[in-house]
Amino acid sequence: MNSPLRIGIAGLGTVGSGVVKLLAEHGRLLSVRGGRPLKIVAVSARSKKKRDIDLTGMRWEKDPMALATAPDIDVVVELIGGSGGVARRLVQKALASGKHVVTANKALLALHGTELAALAEKKQRSLAFEAAVAGGIPIIKALREGLVGNRVKRLYGILNGTCNYILTTMRETGRDFDVVLAEAQAAGYAEADPTFDVDGIDAAHKLAVLTGAAFGARVDFAGVHVEGIRRVTSMDIEFAQELGYRIKLLGLARETRHGIEQRVHPCMVPLDTPIAHIEGVFNAVVVEGDFVGTTMFQGRGAGQGPTASAVVADLVDVARGRDMPAFVVPAEKLATKKASPMDRHVGAYYMRLMVQDRPGVIAAVSGALAKERISLESMLQRGRSESGEVPVVLTTHETEEAAMRRALARIAKLGAVAEEPCVIRIEAF
Amino acid sequence: MNSPLRIGIAGLGTVGSGVVKLLAEHGRLLSVRGGRPLKIVAVSARSKKKRDIDLTGMRWEKDPMALATAPDIDVVVELIGGSGGVARRLVQKALASGKHVVTANKALLALHGTELAALAEKKQRSLAFEAAVAGGIPIIKALREGLVGNRVKRLYGILNGTCNYILTTMRETGRDFDVVLAEAQAAGYAEADPTFDVDGIDAAHKLAVLTGAAFGARVDFAGVHVEGIRRVTSMDIEFAQELGYRIKLLGLARETRHGIEQRVHPCMVPLDTPIAHIEGVFNAVVVEGDFVGTTMFQGRGAGQGPTASAVVADLVDVARGRDMPAFVVPAEKLATKKASPMDRHVGAYYMRLMVQDRPGVIAAVSGALAKERISLESMLQRGRSESGEVPVVLTTHETEEAAMRRALARIAKLGAVAEEPCVIRIEAF
Repeated sequence: MNSPLRIGIAGLGTVGSGVVKLLAEHGRLLSVRGGRPLKIVAVSARSKKKRDIDLTGMRWEKDPMALATAPDIDVVVELIGGSGGVARRLVQKALASGKHVVTANKALLALHGTELAALAEKKQRSLAFEAAVAGGIPIIKALREGLVGNRVKRLYGILNGTCNYILTTMRETGRDFDVVLAEAQAAGYAEADPTFDVDGIDAAHKLAVLTGAAFGARVDFAGVHVEGIRRVTSMDIEFAQELGYRIKLLGLARETRHGIEQRVHPCMVPLDTPIAHIEGVFNAVVVEGDFVGTTMFQGRGAGQGPTASAVVADLVDVARGRDMPAFVVPAEKLATKKASPMDRHVGAYYMRLMVQDRPGVIAAVSGALAKERISLESMLQRGRSESGEVPVVLTTHETEEAAMRRALARIAKLGAVAEEPCVIRIEAF
Repeated sequence: MNSPLRIGIAGLGTVGSGVVKLLAEHGRLLSVRGGRPLKIVAVSARSKKKRDIDLTGMRWEKDPMALATAPDIDVVVELIGGSGGVARRLVQKALASGKHVVTANKALLALHGTELAALAEKKQRSLAFEAAVAGGIPIIKALREGLVGNRVKRLYGILNGTCNYILTTMRETGRDFDVVLAEAQAAGYAEADPTFDVDGIDAAHKLAVLTGAAFGARVDFAGVHVEGIRRVTSMDIEFAQELGYRIKLLGLARETRHGIEQRVHPCMVPLDTPIAHIEGVFNAVVVEGDFVGTTMFQGRGAGQGPTASAVVADLVDVARGRDMPAFVVPAEKLATKKASPMDRHVGAYYMRLMVQDRPGVIAAVSGALAKERISLESMLQRGRSESGEVPVVLTTHETEEAAMRRALARIAKLGAVAEEPCVIRIEAF
């Protein structure tokens, strides 16, 4: 039997405990598949509270940083989380000390991925992070290896299960965002502080990492345009259905002549595209390559089992000595690409206005759009209301975001428009 | 710059030409991603006819076997096809001579995969075959690497684009199999001799390869139960829709207490499952792992670009020295598993009978089912006809295939049953 791969795990939350369980349950299987035993030598966590895992034979390190330098450890698994602090120091120190690193930390990679990749390469060690994006879906491997023969034209995906669960439930029940969020929190599908999820930040972290691996570009989280789902109403979800769309929070990246466009925001997705049917806590990533065409990868985007599955896949790669530059090309060859400004985004738009139901309103709205040379694709007006306010829904043909914003500013100022217009970008695939 | 990976390509049909084009177009990109240039040193094909590819600088070998022993070749790409003959001899000889082999040949792997994997391991060379299954979808890599931490519980997929195209078109147009097949042949989506595709053999080859990689078992093509799509009528497709299903030709594999069940046949797939919506020439594979849960991979299952993408991914793995046992565990550790006999299959069934529209027929049919303790889930009877023959559609709860076959034999003998009953298995996911 070959010598074991000696593992140190920092962080024993949901994911860390999952890794311990998986390695315990499939130890024999994995020593055959990995060519050598995968052995957890030491663990570290904030508290020594009781967990439903067996830590027998593993050293307890009070300070996770001790894992980075322990002579009996080959690979450090960082499952602490957070873009700075201990997690960052641990990964840096571990790589600098010649350890391989496996991490599920998207925030860390989104902010410091390029620098950490360079360090790993300098030390000829692996920096592996399959678990950082889309849970158990092997999308990083797909981008770096399975689709390596392609120039990626575009990628997009449902990258946050909490948001997708909320949007799915809103559609299925007709209830509003706040109600569904509260339920999701009670059910454990959303955090007590849901900001990272519902405001799109988590999806943006993941998108930045995917973009790096797909385009061989320096990870540029600051270049991601981010909007969350708080402003999506059940009324918009209903109109979407009527117009042949489903509302999804997508992360999208593509190269344009202005640079790399990275954006996370609610989208109107045509019902006849596969990604429209990814529901609940599932994630999906679509990759469009110049040779392979359109491919889609879907699965559970979070949770103990799926994330542990991804971490262990990375560990088997390390055990077998299979390596690949973190972001498809060596760090010094990563392209520095300009972030394409959102003003330059070209696409179609959905706009819902609440207007006073009186003559001339539609004419004024369409006038404001015409002034910016934005042409209408469809218009829906629904019923009459006691209060006199009715929703008017417009969809446009493709236009530049800057023009749309100017038109919106004008429309918001119209006396008959009762509240800030709700605007959702329509995606064509 | 590192020394180039020297490639010999046998076969310059659609796929071979695609590989030449891809390597020409992305040569610089791939030398960075692969860590060294990927250089085609020699090619071989049956005829020297004019092709739309540039073969400058590549040696022409009249005999493909010369590639297997040429001292200036590191890896042989076998794109000749066929389970025996030259293809098999070439792969054997190349491995025996210490070359790596990349192949798209599912028939060869389905029949001789285990033996070739053993040879590759003995010689410490790669046997890579991402292109053999599901075109550009990196499903072999997903099974062997990305999902390596899981015990696979079940896998199933749409593995033949021709069949899926025909079934999709039959549903969309209401036309019959023969008509749609003829159109598909004219459009180039089906071969002049469609047997391998429409009779399910191609899908069965692919399933056998997937099963090996998913379960770490010896490849057992003989253990696959195979039925094609010739007997699917547009009437059944309509009834399926009415009952909430779509008819798909699936390949399915799972472990049962009787052994490994591998089967390829038309299935009734619930409309609310993602695989029901994979249409046209697309392929999809669903993998259910014990930790990762359900994952699905979809994309183009054939064609020049997608297949070349898969071949080149394998070449980059070889260039980087990344290897993995062909079927997830070393050949000598591959499990020899009994094929679960089809009689032991347990599932629900759809049955359409054409019956004389007279009293007592339904009673006789349900009596035959009751005798085998098969319980009905639903029954549909449609209208009256001039000829007196009307379709009756029954769906059953789960039962054993053997019981169903006995009941069918009885039903077929009933005087009022006009033609052989059409039976399609219902899959629950």
